[in-house]
Order: sequence, then C-alpha cells, then structure tokens
Amino acid sequence: MTGRLYCFGESGNAYKAALTLTLCGVPWEPVFVDFFGGETRTPAFRALNPMGEVPVWVEGGLILSQSGAIQWHAAEVSGRMGGESPGERREVLRWLLWDNHKLSAQAGTRRFMANFLPEAQRPAAVIDWLGARLRSALQVLDTHLAGRDWVAGGAGPTLADCACAGYLYYPEPFGFDRADWPAIGRWLDRLAALPGWRHPYEMMPGRPSDRA
Amino acid sequence: MTGRLYCFGESGNAYKAALTLTLCGVPWEPVFVDFFGGETRTPAFRALNPMGEVPVWVEGGLILSQSGAIQWHAAEVSGRMGGESPGERREVLRWLLWDNHKLSAQAGTRRFMANFLPEAQRPAAVIDWLGARLRSALQVLDTHLAGRDWVAGGAGPTLADCACAGYLYYPEPFGFDRADWPAIGRWLDRLAALPGWRHPYEMMPGRPSDRA
Repeated sequence: MTGRLYCFGESGNAYKAALTLTLCGVPWEPVFVDFFGGETRTPAFRALNPMGEVPVWVEGGLILSQSGAIQWHAAEVSGRMGGESPGERREVLRWLLWDNHKLSAQAGTRRFMANFLPEAQRPAAVIDWLGARLRSALQVLDTHLAGRDWVAGGAGPTLADCACAGYLYYPEPFGFDRADWPAIGRWLDRLAALPGWRHPYEMMPGRPSDRA
Repeated sequence: MTGRLYCFGESGNAYKAALTLTLCGVPWEPVFVDFFGGETRTPAFRALNPMGEVPVWVEGGLILSQSGAIQWHAAEVSGRMGGESPGERREVLRWLLWDNHKLSAQAGTRRFMANFLPEAQRPAAVIDWLGARLRSALQVLDTHLAGRDWVAGGAGPTLADCACAGYLYYPEPFGFDRADWPAIGRWLDRLAALPGWRHPYEMMPGRPSDRA
C-alpha cells in the first residue's frame, strides 16, 4: 500500500521522513500542504494532526505525526536503516533525539525566521540566540563525524543521518556553511551519493520560488 | 546490576530518566553532576558525553545519553512503560519526540533563563518568545489529556508521561500554572499518585537552596 506523506518542500522535518521512506524503499506519495497559505492552522488540518505540524503520514487507517516517529515506522516495516544490533538501535534513537532537540530545532526555526518571515517581523535577539545554539550543535556533529562515515550505524546510513541532515541541504542562509564544518560537508556528500537521494526541493512539492 | 545516572535535581531531562527507571523497577543510583559549578564543560565530563549534557546512564560498559534514549532502554530491559502494542509504542515515541522538541525544550530553557541566570544576563526577548511557544505546547497537551488518563498508553502510564511531565513539577516560575491547564493538573496528580513517584528534588541530588 502506498502511503501519503503530508509535506511541503521547505520543511526539513518533512524531508527527514521523505528521505527515510525513499531510502527504506517504502512506497509513498506526497500530499502538498500549503503551510505558507495557512493550511496547518485550518480545522481540517488540525483534525488530521492536532499538533498542527508537518509531516503527517497516512497509510490505511494509520495517521502518524512527528518526523522521528514516521522514520521509526519506516525502519520497522522495511527492516532497514534502524540499526543492525541493539547497540546500533540505541545510537540511532539517541542521535535522532539529539537532532530533534539540539540541531534541527535551531536550524529550522532560524532558517524560517531569517528567510521566510517578513523582514519587519524578524526577531533579531531570538535569531542571534538560535545562531549560537546552532553553532554548538554543529560543532558536536562535526567532531562526531570526523572519525566515521555515518552518524549512528557502523556499516551504513540510518534514520539518524536522515534526521541530522534534514535542514542541511537547503540553500537559504541560516548559519550553516559547509566550509566551516568539513566533516559535515563530506558526510552530506556521502549521503547525497546514495541511490534514490534527492534534494528536498526535488523530493517534495513547494519551494520559495513558487511564491516569488 | 545497578546502573548509575549522572544527574542533578534541577534538570527536568534527568528527571525524565530517573522517574522512568524508578517506575520501571530498574535499579539505579544517582551520580551528582555539579552543573552550576561548570562540571558539564570539563574535559572529564565531555569524555563521558561529548554532547555535554545531563543525563548520562552508565551500566557496565554501556554509556548512554539523551533522556529519551535512556527511557527507551529502561522500557526495553524491564518490559514496562513502552506501550503494550505496536500502535501504543508508536504513540509513545511520537509524544516523547513531541515533548523533546516542543514542550521540554521551551519549558526547560525558559525556566533556566528566568530563574538560574543572573538577572543582568536574562535575554528578555528570548524569554518572551519561548513563553509563547510554551503556551502553544501546553495547549496541545491540555487538549489531548482532556479525554484520557495518560499521554500515550490506554491502560497505564508510559515513557511519554515521564517525558512530558519532566519540567512540570518544579516550583520555579517559568510560565506554567496548573490553574490555567486543568487537564494537565489532573494528569500530574495521577502520575504523582503512582507507587515510587517522587518530586525531582527528592529523587536526585542538588536543588536551588543548596546554592543560596
């Protein structure tokens, strides 16, 4: 059964789910959510996900939100990318949680504020604060990746790679420059060389130029 | 084997792990981390956890950070609190991730800034911004709990309850008042009535009055 992923191109959290589903070989099709037109605040969308967020996965009677939960589900149904041993599975979950809390939360929010909010509404103090936290997280990830190919797995990519990379392919400036983080840059190239990988704006409908 | 939890009383993220280990019946003892004395920035602590964060779980050769990963591990080794069915386990993970990203990230950071930073260093704009995000998260949780006893499980408490409650028993003002969120208040009472429950300042060493 082909599942439906409610998503839009600008959402790195949706990209984590889309990339994981693709690399796990789980059939899926996108359903475009007009976030910038206010769709996630409508009663219809809130009925689908009371948390009011993208992505949402719908597969028969299953409705699942939170990118990490969708990623975990994709690994369970495919038997792929979830780690090969109990120890690897612990590492996958650990880095997935770390990403959600420490990396993507700062990267995604800062990118939104610095690029997609009207200029007069951009809160400079918050953007600065998020920038400092983002640099701390990137330092942890770059150091971690200096001696390894993948974030959590020994032999290959896992959910943790798709989570940590969620916002790092986007072109809009948000405080991440590959030149500053060489191990992260090499790892992003490694991930992008996997069969099936596509850029978020190629994998999901919606991109900034649509609104230009 | 009794594991060791590196923690301190003021850390709601450590409390999530401590409460889960206790309710799961996993033997543990606390190792006090002098966060306010700078211990998490020392080379010795960074060797234990390069992410520089509390909690850390050490059990024989296993070293595990991230509260949610420690919680998940406690559920696996005890067979308790992780959900009774695949559907419940998905819900447990979904709400655990939501808490980490949307609730505790705001609550913990705001409580730290508004109470534990020197007054001259408190960034008012960031504290305001976190307050608005915290209220949105509390609204989602209160609405969710209005019709149910526990966050994710049908029949009893799970990891998701311990995660979402992580910061909500603390007395320091950070923008959460039970009077505003009646369903959350009733759920916190329900959780606190479980055998073994203790307040974070009773369960882990370290509390603000130690530094008065």
